[in-house]
Amino acid sequence: MSRYIVGVDLGGTNIKTAIVTDGREVVAKESRSTDAAAGPDAVMELMAASVTELTAQNNIAMSDVMAVGLGAPGPMNWQTGIVYSPPNLPGWNNVPLADEMKRRLGVPCYVDNDANVACYGEYWMGAGQGAESIVVFTLGTGVGGGIVVFNQLLRGKDGTAAELGHIKVQRDGRLCGCGARGCLEAYASVTGMTRTAREGWEAADTALKDMADGNPEVVTGKMIHEAAVAGDAYAKDVFKETAIWLGLGAASMVNALNPERIVLCGGMINAGDMLFDTVRETVRENAFDVPADRCEILPAGLGGDSGVLGCAGCALARFQEEHA
Amino acid sequence: MSRYIVGVDLGGTNIKTAIVTDGREVVAKESRSTDAAAGPDAVMELMAASVTELTAQNNIAMSDVMAVGLGAPGPMNWQTGIVYSPPNLPGWNNVPLADEMKRRLGVPCYVDNDANVACYGEYWMGAGQGAESIVVFTLGTGVGGGIVVFNQLLRGKDGTAAELGHIKVQRDGRLCGCGARGCLEAYASVTGMTRTAREGWEAADTALKDMADGNPEVVTGKMIHEAAVAGDAYAKDVFKETAIWLGLGAASMVNALNPERIVLCGGMINAGDMLFDTVRETVRENAFDVPADRCEILPAGLGGDSGVLGCAGCALARFQEEHA
Repeated sequence: MSRYIVGVDLGGTNIKTAIVTDGREVVAKESRSTDAAAGPDAVMELMAASVTELTAQNNIAMSDVMAVGLGAPGPMNWQTGIVYSPPNLPGWNNVPLADEMKRRLGVPCYVDNDANVACYGEYWMGAGQGAESIVVFTLGTGVGGGIVVFNQLLRGKDGTAAELGHIKVQRDGRLCGCGARGCLEAYASVTGMTRTAREGWEAADTALKDMADGNPEVVTGKMIHEAAVAGDAYAKDVFKETAIWLGLGAASMVNALNPERIVLCGGMINAGDMLFDTVRETVRENAFDVPADRCEILPAGLGGDSGVLGCAGCALARFQEEHA
Repeated sequence: MSRYIVGVDLGGTNIKTAIVTDGREVVAKESRSTDAAAGPDAVMELMAASVTELTAQNNIAMSDVMAVGLGAPGPMNWQTGIVYSPPNLPGWNNVPLADEMKRRLGVPCYVDNDANVACYGEYWMGAGQGAESIVVFTLGTGVGGGIVVFNQLLRGKDGTAAELGHIKVQRDGRLCGCGARGCLEAYASVTGMTRTAREGWEAADTALKDMADGNPEVVTGKMIHEAAVAGDAYAKDVFKETAIWLGLGAASMVNALNPERIVLCGGMINAGDMLFDTVRETVRENAFDVPADRCEILPAGLGGDSGVLGCAGCALARFQEEHA
């Protein structure tokens, strides 16, 4: 009899749910709005409903569900399943998410942070499948990360490992949201990229000025990408700068961990070669030959589903470890 | 019956040998000159003699030796035990060190690189003992590194992991010996420190000028340390700069790996608080609070014996894994 695992990825905007078999087959998935403003109890009811409804629609009894894996924004304690106070989930304060969901669903529930589940999803079923060590960078408003070594998610002693947006790439560099200077995130996030666009704005001859009605504060990553694709030299430079910074961070990880693959996630990877060519070139210039030759640098294989599928994968791994 | 492991750490200058029990008790150790100029066969004979003589002196039969662990400079293949061509061992070209030593000694022999064995020594018996994750920086002419996670040495897919001297701390920074720019080693090694001293030399009012007879090219790390201890403001600044760079590299590892401890090895740690205070402060300013609070930053517990004791520890771990 095949057994099922359900993944639920809780974001500030959407709750994504997927049913997966322990043989890595995706049975069904869905997405619904989070309604974050309604507070933690309502959100958890919604998450529980998404699980019970999706399983029922697919004629799967909850008794055939081995475990439910929950991804949520940090900070959190992955071992106790308590979510502290994510900035984009109003009213969440030390919510015992794993226990609350277990009470609602009657099956073992496991919580992990959103960057780690995305990493594990890529390792389990995506661009990292078959490798025993991967490094994931998630590129969005910030830069998140995940690390798998020895076929295990590296969570660190307190579950805070893989904060790859906060490795240092420049002493006394840009002020980062974390309070430190020179973090990778301050340069290689979408926010960092728009900041790069603004810094050279005055002197630039660029279509971005029209696109943003002359206001550098409203430039988006999408505008920069579009202008670059259309051949705008300034936008191309901004994009390349961003990719070089990311490449420096990636090179540090190649030299530090000698991983089999680096996987990039997030909307920015839609830029394709424009991003990947520069990242790969920068890694080659800045890392040793052997680990640079080894490490493939790839786009996420699961698109926007890395997280929800990773929720299921993490839960399966943790369930199996507990019942080994 | 207690069983013994012998560690042999091969350096360009000395061969260090130690006998250790599988209960982490050091039975005996010795050191002899490498005579590197005599070439690989002579050096291997010397290594074999150091093992047979030290065991005989301690009334230990080779049949009571479980395994011999050999540390050597890289590059190498730790799995095949072949040492490629270390710069400080003339005439060594693809030497099958593990096989050659096994033939001479009649017991299983394992080879690992010198930074990894030093890391493992600290993990096994030194400042990292009892932790399951540590990061080691070895500070000398260059900056080496070692990483233990999940109670295992992280060697990486090709055995090149933990090249922590070559994580990036400054884009377009100093040219490093590896050919890239802005590597930690270019700033935080003894060589990097003397370069920092030379860069401000002209304008500096410093006792180093007398100590070096006015020639900045002959300034050593020891001179900088001595002058700083004596209160020389310029030497203190140079030392502090070096420690800040090291702290930035350490902060990256704290954010990336959330390790329990960071252990610093090498002559530079004799500077004590002058080094450690600044490294700790820089980590605190540049890493997240939770992993920074977690991570103790400590001097090597085994002094110059991290390597040779780590050779024994690595061999024990590998022997046990093979015979599990």
